Amino acid sequence: MKERSIEKTEALSLKHEKFFSKKALEMKASETRELLKLVENSNVISLAGGMPAPETFPVDIIGEITQEVIKNHAAQALQYGTTNGFTPLRNAIVEWMKKKYSIQISKDNLIITTGSQQALDLIGRVFINPGDVVIAEAPTYLSALQAFEYYKPEFVQIPLDDEGIRIDLLEEKLKELKSQGKSVKFVYTISIFQNPAGVTMSEKRRKEILELASQYDFIIIEDNPYGELRYSGSPIRPIKSWDDDGRVLYLGTLSKVLAPGFRIGWIAGDPRFINKLEIAKQSVDLCTSTFNQVIAWKYIEGGYLDKQIPKIVEFYKPRRDAMLKALEDFMPEGVKWTKPEGGMFIWVTAPEGIDTKLMFEKAVAKGVAYVPGEAFYAHREVKNAMRLNFTYVSEEKIREGISRLAETIKEEIKKSKI
Amino acid sequence: MKERSIEKTEALSLKHEKFFSKKALEMKASETRELLKLVENSNVISLAGGMPAPETFPVDIIGEITQEVIKNHAAQALQYGTTNGFTPLRNAIVEWMKKKYSIQISKDNLIITTGSQQALDLIGRVFINPGDVVIAEAPTYLSALQAFEYYKPEFVQIPLDDEGIRIDLLEEKLKELKSQGKSVKFVYTISIFQNPAGVTMSEKRRKEILELASQYDFIIIEDNPYGELRYSGSPIRPIKSWDDDGRVLYLGTLSKVLAPGFRIGWIAGDPRFINKLEIAKQSVDLCTSTFNQVIAWKYIEGGYLDKQIPKIVEFYKPRRDAMLKALEDFMPEGVKWTKPEGGMFIWVTAPEGIDTKLMFEKAVAKGVAYVPGEAFYAHREVKNAMRLNFTYVSEEKIREGISRLAETIKEEIKKSKI
Repeated sequence: MKERSIEKTEALSLKHEKFFSKKALEMKASETRELLKLVENSNVISLAGGMPAPETFPVDIIGEITQEVIKNHAAQALQYGTTNGFTPLRNAIVEWMKKKYSIQISKDNLIITTGSQQALDLIGRVFINPGDVVIAEAPTYLSALQAFEYYKPEFVQIPLDDEGIRIDLLEEKLKELKSQGKSVKFVYTISIFQNPAGVTMSEKRRKEILELASQYDFIIIEDNPYGELRYSGSPIRPIKSWDDDGRVLYLGTLSKVLAPGFRIGWIAGDPRFINKLEIAKQSVDLCTSTFNQVIAWKYIEGGYLDKQIPKIVEFYKPRRDAMLKALEDFMPEGVKWTKPEGGMFIWVTAPEGIDTKLMFEKAVAKGVAYVPGEAFYAHREVKNAMRLNFTYVSEEKIREGISRLAETIKEEIKKSKI
Repeated sequence: MKERSIEKTEALSLKHEKFFSKKALEMKASETRELLKLVENSNVISLAGGMPAPETFPVDIIGEITQEVIKNHAAQALQYGTTNGFTPLRNAIVEWMKKKYSIQISKDNLIITTGSQQALDLIGRVFINPGDVVIAEAPTYLSALQAFEYYKPEFVQIPLDDEGIRIDLLEEKLKELKSQGKSVKFVYTISIFQNPAGVTMSEKRRKEILELASQYDFIIIEDNPYGELRYSGSPIRPIKSWDDDGRVLYLGTLSKVLAPGFRIGWIAGDPRFINKLEIAKQSVDLCTSTFNQVIAWKYIEGGYLDKQIPKIVEFYKPRRDAMLKALEDFMPEGVKWTKPEGGMFIWVTAPEGIDTKLMFEKAVAKGVAYVPGEAFYAHREVKNAMRLNFTYVSEEKIREGISRLAETIKEEIKKSKI
């Protein structure tokens, strides 16, 4: 018999809705998550998630490090920590960013966050007044939209092309907003191997966006969860590395190069911004898990991170290649897709007129799932795109999944022509 | 040479303040935290903190569990988890609360949070509109005030006595608010071994507050981080255990009975409240560390929690006794203090006219620190009280610390009489 809770959901006299804040009444479960629940526990090949492959987790190394932490650092690792983070970890990240990305900072420029998602929420909390203009790429990371949305900004999205955000259109928009007396609080960009589009902002545009930031006086939130996952092409420096003005807040994470289960992210930027973010973090979770921070410190400081990255790259590259090849082999004319040099995602655009949200159930019936593209737009204006993930399932399944997806799209095209 | 950051804090042309949200501009570093920084790295005996003693951390057990998790559950423990929490952990907590506290719930009544602090923030987010009346005990937990403050409630605090919140005064206030057309959103109570006062709400008052909640239609936030730490007296059931109406949201945590470094807390309540809290949590940190949740699951499910609690109690009891005896032995007439049956804190009230914040530096000069009491009042109206912690330092140091504190107070009394 199913456990009966004393809450007695059905018969409850309590009018629970009257207790919710206005903002809570507006909060809705993400439609995308609801759609994806259809896929759970089924034989559907899911290209929808955004998860790293568990095969890339350095399990043995974590086992060794954890034993060392228990043996030598238990009193510290198990205790409360400071809100800005465990100092040795902050120092290790500072050194690593210097070596890897030519970003020159000190530990006062850095706060540890409970994953990148907390970084996004803290940025919303510290910077956004209701009605403030926030600019993002079109499309952009859906959970960033969700985090910022709570703070009620006016969202503006600027299209991407193969070189990242269209700087010409951005400048046009900035002029237009200025003429309307509106100033922009920040531009949010996933500058390398973008989520969901997979594209990378060119060096030229990186420098241009910094100039615009200075000219129009806004800050840049540079989110870089995927930068280490490069399978082809040449390395590129983060925008932050050219930031002479303290205008860039850089978001990093270990979720893709260690494991998401530890929830370790960080924000690097001007100490005055970091200090305010720290005060905000005090009241939302006091501190990020010290235990996990000490493990992360040992992972970076012991050189394991640098050794692990090539292994992850080697594991994912064939999967990206398999997806690109399958798209080439199976997709009908009129379907376009991006060719990412790294990261986790490919953005597929079906012919105009196809609504990928409406098509979703048919795809699932054929045994494949994706994320319908409209969730990556604050105003849901693009209906015919979708995000595909290539890191989680095997090459064979990727090929089979793309074949099923191509079939679904072909049927939709056919139907739309009748 | 000190690392020069590229932010060039001193010379920076960026007017950083203009970017902050209005609410961020109002956020100030906690005065208490600033005061306590005076104490770091010194020979001062600090009775100020709220930390468990590291000697109570079950280090060996954590070592064993962690190895088992790495060996048998790595793929799951290192991956992203669901927002409401790791199901086996939720089930284990449900069973434990049933056995320990006669609280009858199912896993749908439970969400895992990143420590209790996140629970407080999520409750603020989901329930408080600006201007909503929120009632707390006077004094109350300062970080709860800080978490709720962001959402701009109207705070009302109701005095405590040795049986907990003064129900008569609460009822009077509820009537008064009703006559003003104001309704109360929730009453926040730390119902057992209160922070900072150490007192426990009597069973009679527990039932009375539930009746008032039903009569005046408010919800109760019952925060219980210390309930397991009982050194004398008889066990008492949480208010939640009598909650037939789904009006109580119960907050639990493993910070005091496993270790704070894992940041594992939870909220138990009506599934419709829990569901909204889950949606809110999605955008603030996606999920609580899965790794730590799997460890916590093994800790409870393996029976280690039940074995550890008596050990912690045995370790802390002599410290509480030592502090009570030292207060008896050293304090001058006119000083009063609570006699807690458990928890971590004693609340000391100096004679009227003594300002414990102004006295703080003198106490530090004598080699002892405490938390000045006014931080536990939203309107800072009580100046002559202080919170003392007895869990973190040894019995010898407690005795010496109280002796120093008594000297400081005596000098203040003397001075005030001249």
